[in-house]
Amino acid sequence: MSRAYNFSAGPGTLPEPVLAALQEALLEFSTCRAGIMEISHRSKPFEGVLASAKARLSRVLGVPADYSVLFLQGGASLQFYQLALNLALPGEATDFIDTGTWASKALAEAKRVSDAKAVWSSKGTTYDRVPAPGAVQFRDEAVWAHYTTNNTIYGTQSKAPPVTDKRLLADMSSDIASRPIDVARHDLIYAGAQKNLGPSGVVAVILSPWAVERSKAVGKARGGLPSMLDYAVAVENDSMYNTPNTFGIFALEQVLAWVEGQGGLPAIAARVQARADRLYAQLDSSNFWQPHAQPDSRSSMNVTFRLQNSDLEGTFVKEADAAGLMELKGHRSVGGMRASLYNALPDEAVDALIDFMKAFEAKHG
Amino acid sequence: MSRAYNFSAGPGTLPEPVLAALQEALLEFSTCRAGIMEISHRSKPFEGVLASAKARLSRVLGVPADYSVLFLQGGASLQFYQLALNLALPGEATDFIDTGTWASKALAEAKRVSDAKAVWSSKGTTYDRVPAPGAVQFRDEAVWAHYTTNNTIYGTQSKAPPVTDKRLLADMSSDIASRPIDVARHDLIYAGAQKNLGPSGVVAVILSPWAVERSKAVGKARGGLPSMLDYAVAVENDSMYNTPNTFGIFALEQVLAWVEGQGGLPAIAARVQARADRLYAQLDSSNFWQPHAQPDSRSSMNVTFRLQNSDLEGTFVKEADAAGLMELKGHRSVGGMRASLYNALPDEAVDALIDFMKAFEAKHG
Repeated sequence: MSRAYNFSAGPGTLPEPVLAALQEALLEFSTCRAGIMEISHRSKPFEGVLASAKARLSRVLGVPADYSVLFLQGGASLQFYQLALNLALPGEATDFIDTGTWASKALAEAKRVSDAKAVWSSKGTTYDRVPAPGAVQFRDEAVWAHYTTNNTIYGTQSKAPPVTDKRLLADMSSDIASRPIDVARHDLIYAGAQKNLGPSGVVAVILSPWAVERSKAVGKARGGLPSMLDYAVAVENDSMYNTPNTFGIFALEQVLAWVEGQGGLPAIAARVQARADRLYAQLDSSNFWQPHAQPDSRSSMNVTFRLQNSDLEGTFVKEADAAGLMELKGHRSVGGMRASLYNALPDEAVDALIDFMKAFEAKHG
Repeated sequence: MSRAYNFSAGPGTLPEPVLAALQEALLEFSTCRAGIMEISHRSKPFEGVLASAKARLSRVLGVPADYSVLFLQGGASLQFYQLALNLALPGEATDFIDTGTWASKALAEAKRVSDAKAVWSSKGTTYDRVPAPGAVQFRDEAVWAHYTTNNTIYGTQSKAPPVTDKRLLADMSSDIASRPIDVARHDLIYAGAQKNLGPSGVVAVILSPWAVERSKAVGKARGGLPSMLDYAVAVENDSMYNTPNTFGIFALEQVLAWVEGQGGLPAIAARVQARADRLYAQLDSSNFWQPHAQPDSRSSMNVTFRLQNSDLEGTFVKEADAAGLMELKGHRSVGGMRASLYNALPDEAVDALIDFMKAFEAKHG
């Protein structure tokens, strides 16, 4: 066997040089005389890993110096609850843009502790679109607005933040570090690592000074927050209130080193957009292909499509897999196919997919 | 450089064959044509890993067939809150045995959502002891009792569960899988993986049928629990309500395979106890050594001691490190030295430590 082109939606493919570095660090990390998983999180070498991970993420994304960067556990799914628990006073209005499964889940958890409402939704069209930047009407009383930058399951992506004077909270799990973003425009950004940042089991959380202060005020109003769910506690303890996922943070640090080595986000974004464009061009070339997302909402990370003759979809996935193009089956909510084009996927994988598609259409079209 | 004998209190040393297996799986796992970190948690191969991890933990510990085994995130520290949130009705009495830092933290989090009380504490003697099995008086109204089987920082260990008819909840983070336990006597057992089970970032949680039903009833009484903190949701979704720490679970599965290969808990326990006895015998051999824990409360996992001449402690730690005996510095709460003797530590490490101690005493005594 050898490595195939891996289009998995996540956990997804990682850069081979990173995997090689992880292999090496497992038995002996640096001068530790122990592997990276076997050293205390309070040791100098691990403190160095954590500091480097924070510095790299800050450099790569352009995080303002007064923001806080955390690496927590529980994934974006725990953030859905944690962000509302920390950043909304009991009963306070919080607005959500509902662009798919993950956005809906964020809304559902926020409803437990705030007056959360979906002020826009594309559920009626199977989440095939995101709103135009100025299209969402937020409630006057809403303290902040939450949106999901990229919708893994439906293959849609917001090219820019909503145009509003509201404070913005964003789930960037599936497109973080794939393009430059305006971090300063957001008060909270979070992202599960298992797409563009590393393995599952780590979630990166970026907080504005306002968010940290708010967490303290809300904690007071709520009579104290559980220590493990308290942003202020996590900031005070530099992500080490308890033992963090040390190996996951090391892997993330190595992925970010790779991103910097690739030329950072401008270079990554150009590469990512160019190959997504090539794939969408193939999907637009004939009615044989039925792309799911509306053209102005298309994701550069997850490309979702069906076949005009849906009976052929099983064959497509199976023959692609045999050709070394793995994990192209779409999510059950949409069906059909999904090609996830995360940063670490080689360009050749997309070219190979397009070649396969051409041959498949020639045979079955 | 080469690997030293690693006495770290956690994350701690792991078996070398496990590390080798992890190295191999990073680039290509089984017939996946992708690394273990790069495959979907919903894929058949990862489902196999999860099922195997559960089966192995159940076999190794003797988990009754009607119990549930979960692998969650957030460590024991998140369990401190989660267990009380799920298993106590608002205001219900819950009893805690306070044997150290982690027990106190569990109590503090439980107080947020129940009438939690320490009914026994050894704080007054710097947590140098655990209660005799029948020594604790629980409140009649308490719905359950919580204890910590092993106290990493202070080096104490309960050799048996409290003698009581109360339901028992136990934090076994630092001695799980080091000796046979009566799982059926407990309604909840939890353990951060980073001592005897694998890397940090995974917590094993074992629930009785009562605990699962209680979680549902308490959830109803509390108007619903946050999905990520709801035991019933985790059980229903087989630890995969969201993406779990897939690499961590794989590592844990490999560690448990190693434990089974060693002959399981009877063999491990004999080895662990014999070498702890050797080390304690050395500590008892002269007043040069000042073991911290009372003799009947001594831990076989974490051996804490000071020197009669405390000025020599820094030298001891430094010279031991130079001799390839690393991470012997005690926790700041106790000072002195701590030798953590987790399962994966080779017996030769303990013998080397004892030899070093003899030479050190001969030189400085």
